[in-house]
Amino acid sequence: MPYADVSLEAIDTICNNAWESFHSYRLLSLKARANFMRAIAKKLDNAEASLLQTAMAETHLPEARLRSEKARTVFQLTSYADACERGNWLDARIDTAKTDKNTSQPDIRKTLTPLGPVVVFGASNFPFAYSTAGGDTACALAAGCPVIVKGHPAHAETSEMVAQLILEAARETNMPSNVFAHVHGSSNEVGKALVTHPRVKAVGFTGSYGGGKALWDWANARPEPIPVFAEMGSINPVFLFPEKLQQSAEEIAKMYAASVTTSVGQFCTNPGLIIGIESDALNRFIEILGEGIAATPPATMLHPGIAKAYTEKRKTALSQRDVTEVAESRSAAANAEGIATIATAPASAFLNNPVLHQEVFGPYSIVIRCQDADQMRLLTSKLEGQLTASLMATDNDLLQNPALLESIKNIAGRFIMNGVPTGVTVCLSMQHGGPFPATTDPRFTAVGADGIKRFARPVAYQNWSDVLLPDELKRANPLGIWRTVNDQLTKDAG
Amino acid sequence: MPYADVSLEAIDTICNNAWESFHSYRLLSLKARANFMRAIAKKLDNAEASLLQTAMAETHLPEARLRSEKARTVFQLTSYADACERGNWLDARIDTAKTDKNTSQPDIRKTLTPLGPVVVFGASNFPFAYSTAGGDTACALAAGCPVIVKGHPAHAETSEMVAQLILEAARETNMPSNVFAHVHGSSNEVGKALVTHPRVKAVGFTGSYGGGKALWDWANARPEPIPVFAEMGSINPVFLFPEKLQQSAEEIAKMYAASVTTSVGQFCTNPGLIIGIESDALNRFIEILGEGIAATPPATMLHPGIAKAYTEKRKTALSQRDVTEVAESRSAAANAEGIATIATAPASAFLNNPVLHQEVFGPYSIVIRCQDADQMRLLTSKLEGQLTASLMATDNDLLQNPALLESIKNIAGRFIMNGVPTGVTVCLSMQHGGPFPATTDPRFTAVGADGIKRFARPVAYQNWSDVLLPDELKRANPLGIWRTVNDQLTKDAG
Repeated sequence: MPYADVSLEAIDTICNNAWESFHSYRLLSLKARANFMRAIAKKLDNAEASLLQTAMAETHLPEARLRSEKARTVFQLTSYADACERGNWLDARIDTAKTDKNTSQPDIRKTLTPLGPVVVFGASNFPFAYSTAGGDTACALAAGCPVIVKGHPAHAETSEMVAQLILEAARETNMPSNVFAHVHGSSNEVGKALVTHPRVKAVGFTGSYGGGKALWDWANARPEPIPVFAEMGSINPVFLFPEKLQQSAEEIAKMYAASVTTSVGQFCTNPGLIIGIESDALNRFIEILGEGIAATPPATMLHPGIAKAYTEKRKTALSQRDVTEVAESRSAAANAEGIATIATAPASAFLNNPVLHQEVFGPYSIVIRCQDADQMRLLTSKLEGQLTASLMATDNDLLQNPALLESIKNIAGRFIMNGVPTGVTVCLSMQHGGPFPATTDPRFTAVGADGIKRFARPVAYQNWSDVLLPDELKRANPLGIWRTVNDQLTKDAG
Repeated sequence: MPYADVSLEAIDTICNNAWESFHSYRLLSLKARANFMRAIAKKLDNAEASLLQTAMAETHLPEARLRSEKARTVFQLTSYADACERGNWLDARIDTAKTDKNTSQPDIRKTLTPLGPVVVFGASNFPFAYSTAGGDTACALAAGCPVIVKGHPAHAETSEMVAQLILEAARETNMPSNVFAHVHGSSNEVGKALVTHPRVKAVGFTGSYGGGKALWDWANARPEPIPVFAEMGSINPVFLFPEKLQQSAEEIAKMYAASVTTSVGQFCTNPGLIIGIESDALNRFIEILGEGIAATPPATMLHPGIAKAYTEKRKTALSQRDVTEVAESRSAAANAEGIATIATAPASAFLNNPVLHQEVFGPYSIVIRCQDADQMRLLTSKLEGQLTASLMATDNDLLQNPALLESIKNIAGRFIMNGVPTGVTVCLSMQHGGPFPATTDPRFTAVGADGIKRFARPVAYQNWSDVLLPDELKRANPLGIWRTVNDQLTKDAG
């Protein structure tokens, strides 16, 4: 079912309404925000059957994957609601008034305040978890910000259904009007109008580098620039250290054959680059990885645009100088979608050719063969910012190569030891965000309750009466939250 | 004593050296960084007499002011060193591995890691506190970042002396070479070369909107954009609520006559805009404020550039339609510097004339007369982002005007009740930063130990051996810091 692009006039009305709503919504208690989020989660649970059916038809993702993604989305909403209500994310800091012979210091109390209306762009590859009621929406609502979602055209109907559930939940929990809005749009003009509207104060996005960078540039060119949290793609390098590879080449190869091809490779944490040192073990690894890839059948991708891009980028990558194809999905027809593929190239080729640094979004990975650990370190220093870096290594491997280890630590937001980067746990300790161009702002995370902080800023109240302070700063600590009072963490009054 | 601009070749060497230094410096313990900072503080104390003498000659600021600024600088270094060593700023989060019948979750541990070399631009108005060994430098060193300072040309000799003390402290505490560097430069090319160098990863700046915005634009145009923390100026509106003004017009007028003229008005928190509602009390306030201003003699400003800009901007502001001068420093000669000045205008003039929204950096303020609270709210909604907003109000005033109060909360980073914005306490609860254009990033503070976080980003370690983790994440909690373990704040092992 096709939806027309929202008009520019309607965008203006929607953004102005969201701004009006902001003044009421941000004054609601943490508990009220949390209850709204829990109500959305419950509605997603209740509508599971029809949501899965619609999403399957629109995205070609299998039911089991969509079921687990929906469950993840519900968990995000409920666990961020819990974190919101717990209130520790507000980082309340209090310095009480002091007067001694040398100094007089006022009473100062700091908390976080929401930024204002947030625009969230639905992601093509996660119709639930990073779309309409996904992580960005959940974080913005927890922070106290109204949300305007632009649904992704590749799953517009699913997005519309989820939006209706959110609006129902808002009504049933007595949220202010216009705390949530949903629009459709395929054109760049819609995105630009949303990001440049003066009442919009932050943006969440998951998608391509081109898309994210365009939003970021528009946001920075505004008279009042606003933050854009764009998670843009990553080749997620995997470092094979020699001792570990010697011990476990087969096991690692099998683990990575699965990781490269999970969900037809359509994860932002898909491992698109595997780096090892020339050895018999590396040859054995490549051989077994190739067998795993050959045994993986081609599969339908999320939408025709992604399939076309994968086919073209794969072809380009394989045609680069000194790149050799190792294996692809066995007996794939020439026009099949999502052909799983492994290639290999020497480090020299990678170092001299920026094309090989580019993401091939899909079930593709290239194994780079280095001469030694020094070349591996040189190669690492030439890598762009990444969401993740995975290290297949013994402790001894890392203790022997401190400079290489430090070099790896510069490039990513999450470092996985002897595991795969796919699978991003929703928990407070997660960091899903890495140096540019993986994201536009590596100082924040897109997964985990710390993501709430993306949509808030600190404010200090100097010498305010208790009655006028937000609850989290009142002297008696009525919320019972952890606060730093005169440099000490405590739940005591202060 | 004039210093030549640093050459572009030298900048390249300095930035590359800082990058090399980064790999050693960031591995040092929190205690080692803190000891370095304390050593700098001690050297500033020991060299106080000569530092004050030089700074007085360069800046024309009086000795008492410079002495207290130097003491503030020492306090920043030592209190941020304490915070650095205490380690709570790292926001350590730990989720231990879990396996139950439905899920398996890896061990994940998150901390902050330094961004890399930081360039700090010395501020003209604070030769100590926001310059060479000032707040930005202290925060960057605490975060684990090497620092490159560009001294401000208006106090180049003071800057040079402080830089030598920092270098001595670095040697005596065995810091890695090139952890600190100092350059001179008056041209835009020097600033641009520093900000666009690929090895520089963040920038700190305090100064004009034009200067800060240029740095920010250069930083965003890099292949890898980097954060710029520019604190750029603010007119720091003061809201006079009716009941309070009725009670205390005289007292408030005297308080503000002092605040407007402190240090010849050369503070970023100087109150340049005072907003009241037409009444006898407001007339009385304006009259007494005018008397206080007339009684303030003109005074030499920081440097000829600032004096010239003040004279011109003051003249422009006074010549705007419907603006009336209330008072100026009595018997000021026509060519005197720093003539204290109060003007007044009706709200309609302010609403229609963007010139009146601009900062007049110096001892100048304008009193805007509103018809009623609604017009005051309308005016508030048209204000740009500010560092501070001050409210002279009884509790009753605020409870009667909730919409105006919420409107004020949108525009600033710190809200002062019945006080003046000048005087920024160095403490954890301080927020010195507000919405654009007051700063380029209102999500961080330039004053207080939370400013350390400007120069770090979160990283997550998944399934790492204890021996390879940073100390703050090791299972036994050897640093004894507060950490969030499985969603609970604790100092226990985890």
